[in-house]
Amino acid sequence: MDLATVVGVALGFALVLTAILLGGDVVSYLNAPAVLIVVGGATAATMASQPLAKFLKFPRVIAKTLFAKTPEPAMVIKQIVALAEVARRDGILALEGMIGEMQDEFLVHGIQMAVDGTDPEVIQSVMETELENLLDRHEAGKGMLDALGMYAPAFGMIGTLVGLVAMLSNMDDPSKIGAGMAAALLTTLYGALLANIIFCPLADKLALRSAEEAFLKTIVIHGVMSIQSGDNPRTVESKLITFLPPAQRVALEEAKAA
Amino acid sequence: MDLATVVGVALGFALVLTAILLGGDVVSYLNAPAVLIVVGGATAATMASQPLAKFLKFPRVIAKTLFAKTPEPAMVIKQIVALAEVARRDGILALEGMIGEMQDEFLVHGIQMAVDGTDPEVIQSVMETELENLLDRHEAGKGMLDALGMYAPAFGMIGTLVGLVAMLSNMDDPSKIGAGMAAALLTTLYGALLANIIFCPLADKLALRSAEEAFLKTIVIHGVMSIQSGDNPRTVESKLITFLPPAQRVALEEAKAA
Amino acid sequence: MDLATVVGVALGFALVLTAILLGGDVVSYLNAPAVLIVVGGATAATMASQPLAKFLKFPRVIAKTLFAKTPEPAMVIKQIVALAEVARRDGILALEGMIGEMQDEFLVHGIQMAVDGTDPEVIQSVMETELENLLDRHEAGKGMLDALGMYAPAFGMIGTLVGLVAMLSNMDDPSKIGAGMAAALLTTLYGALLANIIFCPLADKLALRSAEEAFLKTIVIHGVMSIQSGDNPRTVESKLITFLPPAQRVALEEAKAA
Amino acid sequence: MDLATVVGVALGFALVLTAILLGGDVVSYLNAPAVLIVVGGATAATMASQPLAKFLKFPRVIAKTLFAKTPEPAMVIKQIVALAEVARRDGILALEGMIGEMQDEFLVHGIQMAVDGTDPEVIQSVMETELENLLDRHEAGKGMLDALGMYAPAFGMIGTLVGLVAMLSNMDDPSKIGAGMAAALLTTLYGALLANIIFCPLADKLALRSAEEAFLKTIVIHGVMSIQSGDNPRTVESKLITFLPPAQRVALEEAKAA
Amino acid sequence: MDLATVVGVALGFALVLTAILLGGDVVSYLNAPAVLIVVGGATAATMASQPLAKFLKFPRVIAKTLFAKTPEPAMVIKQIVALAEVARRDGILALEGMIGEMQDEFLVHGIQMAVDGTDPEVIQSVMETELENLLDRHEAGKGMLDALGMYAPAFGMIGTLVGLVAMLSNMDDPSKIGAGMAAALLTTLYGALLANIIFCPLADKLALRSAEEAFLKTIVIHGVMSIQSGDNPRTVESKLITFLPPAQRVALEEAKAA
Repeated sequence: MDLATVVGVALGFALVLTAILLGGDVVSYLNAPAVLIVVGGATAATMASQPLAKFLKFPRVIAKTLFAKTPEPAMVIKQIVALAEVARRDGILALEGMIGEMQDEFLVHGIQMAVDGTDPEVIQSVMETELENLLDRHEAGKGMLDALGMYAPAFGMIGTLVGLVAMLSNMDDPSKIGAGMAAALLTTLYGALLANIIFCPLADKLALRSAEEAFLKTIVIHGVMSIQSGDNPRTVESKLITFLPPAQRVALEEAKAA
Repeated sequence: MDLATVVGVALGFALVLTAILLGGDVVSYLNAPAVLIVVGGATAATMASQPLAKFLKFPRVIAKTLFAKTPEPAMVIKQIVALAEVARRDGILALEGMIGEMQDEFLVHGIQMAVDGTDPEVIQSVMETELENLLDRHEAGKGMLDALGMYAPAFGMIGTLVGLVAMLSNMDDPSKIGAGMAAALLTTLYGALLANIIFCPLADKLALRSAEEAFLKTIVIHGVMSIQSGDNPRTVESKLITFLPPAQRVALEEAKAA
Repeated sequence: MDLATVVGVALGFALVLTAILLGGDVVSYLNAPAVLIVVGGATAATMASQPLAKFLKFPRVIAKTLFAKTPEPAMVIKQIVALAEVARRDGILALEGMIGEMQDEFLVHGIQMAVDGTDPEVIQSVMETELENLLDRHEAGKGMLDALGMYAPAFGMIGTLVGLVAMLSNMDDPSKIGAGMAAALLTTLYGALLANIIFCPLADKLALRSAEEAFLKTIVIHGVMSIQSGDNPRTVESKLITFLPPAQRVALEEAKAA
Repeated sequence: MDLATVVGVALGFALVLTAILLGGDVVSYLNAPAVLIVVGGATAATMASQPLAKFLKFPRVIAKTLFAKTPEPAMVIKQIVALAEVARRDGILALEGMIGEMQDEFLVHGIQMAVDGTDPEVIQSVMETELENLLDRHEAGKGMLDALGMYAPAFGMIGTLVGLVAMLSNMDDPSKIGAGMAAALLTTLYGALLANIIFCPLADKLALRSAEEAFLKTIVIHGVMSIQSGDNPRTVESKLITFLPPAQRVALEEAKAA
Repeated sequence: MDLATVVGVALGFALVLTAILLGGDVVSYLNAPAVLIVVGGATAATMASQPLAKFLKFPRVIAKTLFAKTPEPAMVIKQIVALAEVARRDGILALEGMIGEMQDEFLVHGIQMAVDGTDPEVIQSVMETELENLLDRHEAGKGMLDALGMYAPAFGMIGTLVGLVAMLSNMDDPSKIGAGMAAALLTTLYGALLANIIFCPLADKLALRSAEEAFLKTIVIHGVMSIQSGDNPRTVESKLITFLPPAQRVALEEAKAA
């Protein structure tokens, strides 16, 4: 998880805590049953909406996607252009020896198919299927965060309704009405906090990470297809460089000059 | 229905029940007319939105989809590769003898067409039409759960409005205001519970199940087309394996090695 | 309108009426100005959003779509296969004599074009344009029900705000506050009832009906194209049968055997 | 603006006014600052969301689209068939003399290109680009009405919050609480009225008008392409007539017979 | 940022300030912790939803897009037609000398490729990829404004809940209830103001700017492709002019005549 997410989530909770401390004592805001109904209820509803195997596997998928370091697009392009140079100079078979040094499995798979002389249409279709299925798995992970972000406020409201009914059924002692209302509102507060500080931002983050990975893999697909078709390294580069924003193109040029 | 859904729904209700017990007596939360208006109203509105034949058939469609066991993609791929080996060794007609052992009707239909020498484009189009229509039927089933998930809270609100009007029209005895409000809120609570613990999670589950089945059937279509075109078993496998996440690919390799 | 819609709407109102009778007297719930503002306002806003000619024609379009009996897909397939048999045996021109007996104008138009020797691409394009325009007209009808379903609760809220302002401006007699609030809430109740018992379910029903008709017409298009291309009746049937769910396929087989 | 819109908007306001008069005096409902904050705020937010040039031009675009009379599709088809007859009899160049009589600039442009012997693909692409850009301009006009329809209730809520804070900060005189609340609610009422009686219905109307114009222009494109390709007038008619609903087709036949 | 946005945002705040001054003193509306929780919370949640690098770069992307002056489409067309004239008269290589005078990098890149004799399909694909990636970057910038527009009201509600719980837990002194409620509502007010006066309008503006730039770049792509294919200047112009609304076409004609 990069710094922004850690800092953002921590900052969100710190701000709410500050607001609470400025307004009174923290004790009125702590309520174990309220935590139970919001966290437990949202988890239960999300679990009910998922096949068991997926529900158990999701946390790992999410963690992996959030923590994984995505390489810089410019670095990936540099690497592909280097491969194109070798392929041009020593023939495409020479790339086989370089596979051991590559870290991106997706690139390895593509180059391997090119080296094996696989039909270009098959290479493209296999790589695109692989990318599509990866995105489907990310989408499923995002689906769980979206569900949590939707069910947390819903169970917050359910908890508040339960509390209101309890309070309204026992209004003999008017001095307790305020405390009863306050307790009832806590679940709504918890639901809103969980949804807006954790679940919804993480779901958005996951979607951006997934888009970044799709973007990188699209560059790799274009690169492998270009190498396979025997393009000269300069053509490969000029095809791939259009994926970069102008600023990064300059950075790439400078990296090359250095 | 796999364990996650059963546990999730039960857990959801148990949590809300716990919250109720912690806050007071259960009796204040039981109200037959409130059940009637929320469950009955949501069912009536959903029925009004459906042709009768579909409304009566949906429960079965939903149950079937939720309870049906979907085979593992890796197992399906293994089976198709086995068919490809037979087709390669003994000719495609040899597959006819194996049809009796297959359990997946969709696969049987595809292989039967391939054995019959049906035109490949017709095979693909027939199988895709069949898949599309299956998805439409699932979508219709999901539509009913979505409708219930939308109308339950709506009738919850209608019940609360009916209760509020009754209470506000008879405010002579202030001591009854609290109880009246509490009773009025119960329908909103019921609507929120039904929507968030049952209808919405099941609708999501149905969509995931449908996607899983579409995914499996897409693998089968690719497999049948690949066998029909006379691909060698290794090509069939390498085409289908791209549908699996990396972890399952390893599992498949190990299963083969074993 | 098939039974489900009639029963569903009636049941919805009966349930709400029961809830009202259980809670007090019906009189508090009747309010002519509230009916006026909700029904009138929703109608006025919907009218403002439509060209006059369409607004006046919509009720008929809606009624026609809801009441029209859609034939069973299996029956339509049987009829097309019968046509294919005649075309195969006696030539496509022999179909001209059968046009008089057909009831589906869309099928008649397709067969007529086939008999006239119209170019197959033109037949397909003409039939698809016709289907598309039919769906556009249904969509427009659904649009009016959607508008009513959106504006009814909106005018319910407007009525409640008008009532609240009236009540709050005249709070001299506290004993009238309850009755004022009750009256103000009635428009919200009416808006919710109309939207959730009538407008939204009917809009959904219309969409399902439209989908059913599109489904049937798609079968007809495939059937006419198949007959036109001289397919033998068995091929026509095996192409069309994929549109049916497995259960109906069996029914079709049995109907044929009978 | 056709009658439906004028009547609908007027009726909507008349109904709300009636409800106000039935419930009390109109004076409590008039509040200049409330008008200012809702109308001004919604206009300011909409202006902030638009480039200045577009913001100033939109009213004209909207007025033009709402007031413009769209010709009947059947009349347009009749006119195109008449052109096809001339083209068939006297050659396509004979159409040049008829351009002066045509009122639809879009048709004139298409016929002019056909007369000039422009490549059919270019004609189609130029006409489709023109249609697409027209729809984009309509979409932009609708966007401003949508924005107004979204910001009016938002500023209504902002005004109510401002009023509530003012009232709650000065609760020394309880007799003024009611009047304060009433005044605070007025902005919410105004926002709801503007959105539901004017902005949202007009936005929908604009979309329908745009769809109507797109529909007409699609008929013109098909007609011009058909004339250009030298189709005989009967073919041109049978191609275009599929765009009409069955009832209008009969009307067209009768018009021809007359 | 063009005038409309500056004026719109300023006007929005001025109107709300006026409403506040009319209703009481400004002091009740100022609350540092409320600013902290709404602005800080929305920023924290948005930061958590973004990779750090993007979060830090977004303000620049947004500023650049809002402030950048987009040239008039008619001027761009005029410039491209001028290039077409030179290409027609002196050959396409003559355009190389004119590149220095051009300001639009996108046009320069396209012309450069045409001069270099790059394959037309490659030119089109490279330019379209570049446009697509530019739109993706704009979309990402809009995503941050959308997130702020969603989280600001959410943290407004969170702040109000925190304040309500504080107030309800300490209701010993009834005279402070009003002030407590007023303070609690301020965060909701702040959230609504920020979302509806700043974040949502700017997000819409960014989308319109992005569409404008896409529109211009589409004209440039069509123009470069037309020049590259050796079209004569009049054809180039008639192809591009269809992108303009009728009024601007006249302006272009007049500009040419002048």
